[in-house]
Amino acid sequence: MSELRKDPVIGRWVIIATERARRPGNFIDTAAYAYGHDDQRSCPLCHIQKQPICTVGTVSVVTSESFPSPQAGNLEQRNHGLYEIVGGMGVQETVIETPDHTANMADLNTEQIGLVLKTYVQRFRELKKNASLKYIFAYKNYGISDSGPLAAHAHSHVMATTVKPLHVKEKLAGAKEYYDAHKRCVYCDLIRQEIKEQKRVIFETEHFIAVTPFAARFLFELWILPKRHHCDFADGLEGTAADLARMLKVILQKIKMGLDDPAYNFIIQTAPRKGEVSSEGKWETLEADYHWHIELTPQLTRMAGFEKGTGFYICAIPPEDTAEYLREAETP
Amino acid sequence: MSELRKDPVIGRWVIIATERARRPGNFIDTAAYAYGHDDQRSCPLCHIQKQPICTVGTVSVVTSESFPSPQAGNLEQRNHGLYEIVGGMGVQETVIETPDHTANMADLNTEQIGLVLKTYVQRFRELKKNASLKYIFAYKNYGISDSGPLAAHAHSHVMATTVKPLHVKEKLAGAKEYYDAHKRCVYCDLIRQEIKEQKRVIFETEHFIAVTPFAARFLFELWILPKRHHCDFADGLEGTAADLARMLKVILQKIKMGLDDPAYNFIIQTAPRKGEVSSEGKWETLEADYHWHIELTPQLTRMAGFEKGTGFYICAIPPEDTAEYLREAETP
Repeated sequence: MSELRKDPVIGRWVIIATERARRPGNFIDTAAYAYGHDDQRSCPLCHIQKQPICTVGTVSVVTSESFPSPQAGNLEQRNHGLYEIVGGMGVQETVIETPDHTANMADLNTEQIGLVLKTYVQRFRELKKNASLKYIFAYKNYGISDSGPLAAHAHSHVMATTVKPLHVKEKLAGAKEYYDAHKRCVYCDLIRQEIKEQKRVIFETEHFIAVTPFAARFLFELWILPKRHHCDFADGLEGTAADLARMLKVILQKIKMGLDDPAYNFIIQTAPRKGEVSSEGKWETLEADYHWHIELTPQLTRMAGFEKGTGFYICAIPPEDTAEYLREAETP
Repeated sequence: MSELRKDPVIGRWVIIATERARRPGNFIDTAAYAYGHDDQRSCPLCHIQKQPICTVGTVSVVTSESFPSPQAGNLEQRNHGLYEIVGGMGVQETVIETPDHTANMADLNTEQIGLVLKTYVQRFRELKKNASLKYIFAYKNYGISDSGPLAAHAHSHVMATTVKPLHVKEKLAGAKEYYDAHKRCVYCDLIRQEIKEQKRVIFETEHFIAVTPFAARFLFELWILPKRHHCDFADGLEGTAADLARMLKVILQKIKMGLDDPAYNFIIQTAPRKGEVSSEGKWETLEADYHWHIELTPQLTRMAGFEKGTGFYICAIPPEDTAEYLREAETP
């Protein structure tokens, strides 16, 4: 079991595993970033016995047992002196992207990537019905894991949490502040400026644009943004899933071919459930002020010490150069 | 040369290297975390030719050339469409902790660690005189580097930046909010609760306490806090440097012995220059509401994808267990 704990100073929520199965002394060697289960014969996702909770074509979704649903946990927020705890932390689901033992989403065909996107949409729509889930996102870790071995078999996750993550709060607040000042979406303005300048654009499709961010934190960090404004991923993707699948296929292939098949991760960031208003008054996301998007980062470097402590990053190559490099990287 | 760029949505400042010396294609293999210069005969810090800007006993400080001083850069904030840029980004200094070719600060004797702390104090006092430097901190990366090979020879850095880092802002704002509500320092309350509970305390000296934080982000993350309230490191350390040196020696040895000599980093977090008031009205740090401290994290895991994207962390072992493990870890 796990619980959510809140940092008493900055209000950041952290998931803390409370079971004692894994003793600290045992952890040192298992903090590896390596794949497990490279062998198809023993791959847990090739031979999964669990009943899927959803299938879209050949994509299937199963619940992750390490993340108990909030119904099962104690959703009440309780205090312990200075500290705040929430029992039920949300839902994590595993999206098995293909029945075949393919490792990298880059190697799926565009149709299959489109099915994965449609699966995310279906799960987002379902999870939105649960009012105790405050934030829903999809993410993928390829070739890197923090919590034991990672199945090589292509998979990603849909996650829904009972609290609102700190960075998401910052993004929503920042986007709202810009909107209040300018009556325009900051991401729409950003897209306009990037298309005009063409310095950080990697690839463009009819409906999407991939850029390296002007203030990139990580080497080769990139954002995929829909050109059409929408705050919500599930609704905003309508009619453009095939186009985004094409974009993802190209970008993931550029990363694979251009950067020697590195580990990478992406996250789909969307507005919280519509109509949700918090007591802080900060969370009423207007449809006009937020713009869903994907953040994608190849894992080439680690964070230095002061970056963790200050949130102050150093990026050793200008994003204009990494954009140019990926723009020119060939794909098969 | 480098410049500071501001994320247009959340206002996070990032240092971007703007020289084009390092081409993206060359970077892939050099993104190593390994030591360089393990050989004393070729160690750049054993044979440094540079004139130190400061010496305290056998500890010496040299400027880092990759970080040009703000006097040399263009300190003006300028806009480029949606984006903001600052030319001069601050000062980075390298503290050579010992003339001997010792790698880990854990292996310095307590007196030498005390000299390192006194060196930080001296540099903080000097750098505070420069009004263009908004935030000063000291940090150490042992055994891990993001930007090329790291000298094995024990060293740390003092850094002063022309902008205020995002996490520091959050901490100061959070501490101020708590103080306004309770008329007490949140860190003082935290220390009281931790001493009373004795669940997350690793080690205590006369003037300092080492704990794992209740909402730890990283495995074995720990904080060293002065029991005596002070917002400022340089002034607050007065009379207790030898005691903190003893604390650091014990903690660093516990990490070395208990966790098999892992890479680690620490950062000394202090209030910004006293009397500094920003236009946002958020930065007038009362002496009463902030409490300087050290954040120290062994490098056992990497951040997962969604942690970077959401600021939402998962800690796989409860901090109560890691505290117990380090409490019991023997030191020579």
